[in-house]
Amino acid sequence: MLKKGLLGQLTQTLCCLPGVGPKTAQRMSFHLLQRDRKGAKILANTLIEALDKIGHCQICRTLTEQDVCQICADKAKDSAVVCIVESPADAWIIDQATIFNGHYFVLHGRLSPLDGIGPDELGLDVLEQRMATGGIKELILATNSTVEGEATAYFIGELARKHQVQASRIAHGVPMGGELEFIDSGTLAHAFNGRKNL
Amino acid sequence: MLKKGLLGQLTQTLCCLPGVGPKTAQRMSFHLLQRDRKGAKILANTLIEALDKIGHCQICRTLTEQDVCQICADKAKDSAVVCIVESPADAWIIDQATIFNGHYFVLHGRLSPLDGIGPDELGLDVLEQRMATGGIKELILATNSTVEGEATAYFIGELARKHQVQASRIAHGVPMGGELEFIDSGTLAHAFNGRKNL
Ligand SMILES: [Zn+2]
Ligand SMILES: [Zn+2]
Repeated sequence: MLKKGLLGQLTQTLCCLPGVGPKTAQRMSFHLLQRDRKGAKILANTLIEALDKIGHCQICRTLTEQDVCQICADKAKDSAVVCIVESPADAWIIDQATIFNGHYFVLHGRLSPLDGIGPDELGLDVLEQRMATGGIKELILATNSTVEGEATAYFIGELARKHQVQASRIAHGVPMGGELEFIDSGTLAHAFNGRKNL
Repeated sequence: MLKKGLLGQLTQTLCCLPGVGPKTAQRMSFHLLQRDRKGAKILANTLIEALDKIGHCQICRTLTEQDVCQICADKAKDSAVVCIVESPADAWIIDQATIFNGHYFVLHGRLSPLDGIGPDELGLDVLEQRMATGGIKELILATNSTVEGEATAYFIGELARKHQVQASRIAHGVPMGGELEFIDSGTLAHAFNGRKNL
């Protein structure tokens, strides 16, 4: 009946949302077309505008609609203390969960030589440059506690040592193999405060 | 950090999706902008096209991008047996769960005098017209088993009696107070087959 055609297409594209399977997507399609056309219209337009305008901060590489994000532009934040994270979502969640008052640096991934993701793809050349020119006093390594995340933290820790920058790793209150994005903020705050020097 | 601005707006509008709270919406925003821009673009465009093109079937009032939906246009379906449902989603789910081979009629709601929703708002004037002119032999009342759904079924049952059309109500295998949309298809098939004459 409604499996084919435009409604079916809409359901299929809604499946691109994380955690949304075909059944939920079907329900969302009906809801949007049936009960909330105004909200659906706003959603579509906001999505298009966001895709158009939101890019990466020139300094920390997080998502922002400005050239420089709010945190990097905030004079009250200490730009010499930089927390390294894998994704903008991780930066956001640490910002929510902790009283950290420094800057972030977003890798947009982790070292993965087999996939062709080396230091330069993660912006580590830029980060090293900033360490070399004395712009950074301390690094807090908050990559995920996966194998690649740990390897990435180790690699950046070595870079820091080379440039005599202090580096610490957030504590393993985070379950092994877990992704920061799905940890409750209490555990995350604990792990953040319990970070240890490398 | 990213709470304000366009990303915050996107998160807020994603909350218009059923079952999506602020935390899930936040995760969806990051996902769309960070990991699946192509999917996000397709989603926005499909949504706009769907809003533009999908309207109501001239015969059964379900959602369709044609003037007449696939079921109403299908000559193999028996147009004299009509299943009355509250929403397009209910028609769709019955079509999936049962071997019913008749037509549907979508009320887009239920009788609710306090909200100004009377018979005409549900298209019952049109339905009665079709009964009066002999176009319908049998009605299957598949409104929800809520108080309003039951009252609506009773009202339509009386209309059917007036025009000497056979009417049945789907069996109460559906939990009382439950909405069809959230019932598993086995229960729904059972309830549908066990319908009793009014
Ligand atoms: Zn920034
Ligand atoms: Zn139809």
